[in-house]
Amino acid sequence: MAERGGRALIGIFDSGLGGLTALRELVQLLPDRDIVYFGDTGRVPYGTRSSETIVRYAMQDMRFLLEQKVDVVLVACGTVSSTALSQLRAAFPIPVIGVVEGAAAAAVKATRNRRIGVIATGATVSSGAFPHAIAELAPDVAVTQVACPMLVPLVENGYIADDDPVTALVLADYLAAIRAAECDTLILGCTHFPLLAGAISRLLPGVKLINSGREAARHLVECLPAASADEQGTVRYFVSDS
Amino acid sequence: MAERGGRALIGIFDSGLGGLTALRELVQLLPDRDIVYFGDTGRVPYGTRSSETIVRYAMQDMRFLLEQKVDVVLVACGTVSSTALSQLRAAFPIPVIGVVEGAAAAAVKATRNRRIGVIATGATVSSGAFPHAIAELAPDVAVTQVACPMLVPLVENGYIADDDPVTALVLADYLAAIRAAECDTLILGCTHFPLLAGAISRLLPGVKLINSGREAARHLVECLPAASADEQGTVRYFVSDS
Repeated sequence: MAERGGRALIGIFDSGLGGLTALRELVQLLPDRDIVYFGDTGRVPYGTRSSETIVRYAMQDMRFLLEQKVDVVLVACGTVSSTALSQLRAAFPIPVIGVVEGAAAAAVKATRNRRIGVIATGATVSSGAFPHAIAELAPDVAVTQVACPMLVPLVENGYIADDDPVTALVLADYLAAIRAAECDTLILGCTHFPLLAGAISRLLPGVKLINSGREAARHLVECLPAASADEQGTVRYFVSDS
Repeated sequence: MAERGGRALIGIFDSGLGGLTALRELVQLLPDRDIVYFGDTGRVPYGTRSSETIVRYAMQDMRFLLEQKVDVVLVACGTVSSTALSQLRAAFPIPVIGVVEGAAAAAVKATRNRRIGVIATGATVSSGAFPHAIAELAPDVAVTQVACPMLVPLVENGYIADDDPVTALVLADYLAAIRAAECDTLILGCTHFPLLAGAISRLLPGVKLINSGREAARHLVECLPAASADEQGTVRYFVSDS
């Protein structure tokens, strides 16, 4: 990994602001690092678009981060991680880390009854990326996926209180299949969803929630050489709309 | 208005598929006309974006329709009509008709108690376009506006049944101010909203609903020279994503 002065510049992007949940984890793990964050707020959401469009947008997001001279990129978006990661890795000469592998590994480690649920955008569910990654690690685990297209707009419009009645009604519908499958572990496959963790836990008490952005941040940290811990990093933010 | 063979080619665009409600009205009024429809499904929704971004996207949408050789454009999007209409009219040499004026005129004509409500996207409400248009026609009318950012995602995700419990809960919150203001007429200021007319009427019985796309289609018809009614027009559809 190319670095300047021994410190890799980390790039992180999301379709909108959901990736801030992953950024928060990253800053806690690596307070000494410089980070560039890009949110494509001008074209959010990605999760309802076709894979061709998602790949095209993700390529543009990556090019923007490369112009900022980043050395490694965290794709803090479940949709891009599921749909476009191999294309990004083929197209760009730096490490690209998505949110799928780390979350899959954490879920496999967490489950006791070998039943894992995944909630994500429609595009992520269609890609089959989470079931595929879980099957590579543990072929005996049963995976139940549910596409939850309303959760991103609910989060972006502030319906995030643990007891929000609208969110509870939408979640009750989405989570019925997770409950019926008796999953003991649920991957939050979209970086918006940790903001609904409280509301989800109310409906699925006792189920272990896996924050895919957090797991990806941990995975990134393992890939980086250690830096001096007494320095303070800075985060620069860019968005494509206000 | 320039025409080929005496028949103006009509262009119509929306941020997504909401404009189809206006298209339907237009086809009923003008079955003999050729129409080009463009839906910017690759960047929907517009209503939560900044005015600069909305203007930029609308300019690109107009250019696409001009390349299709349209003679007149119906902006079947409340957000663009409220935010970018004057810029579009200044930039392009053909008539551009939005959804604001026609709906304002119809609402002023319909109201008995001089209290009109407007529900629309956040960008439309912020623009003040509907209150401004109503005040120009009838300064004595009281206008109550409510931004309803969740309604587009609800429609796009199929929560459109008259008795949908999620939509009813969201609408009850949004419409409380309309009810409190005792409006007898409500402008559906976004072309997605006619798909929720049944659900809205359940919460506001007796309130006259104004379909802004329909009124814009009527306004367009008045602007066009009559064509022979025994011909059958065709509609061509374009979208920026599947």
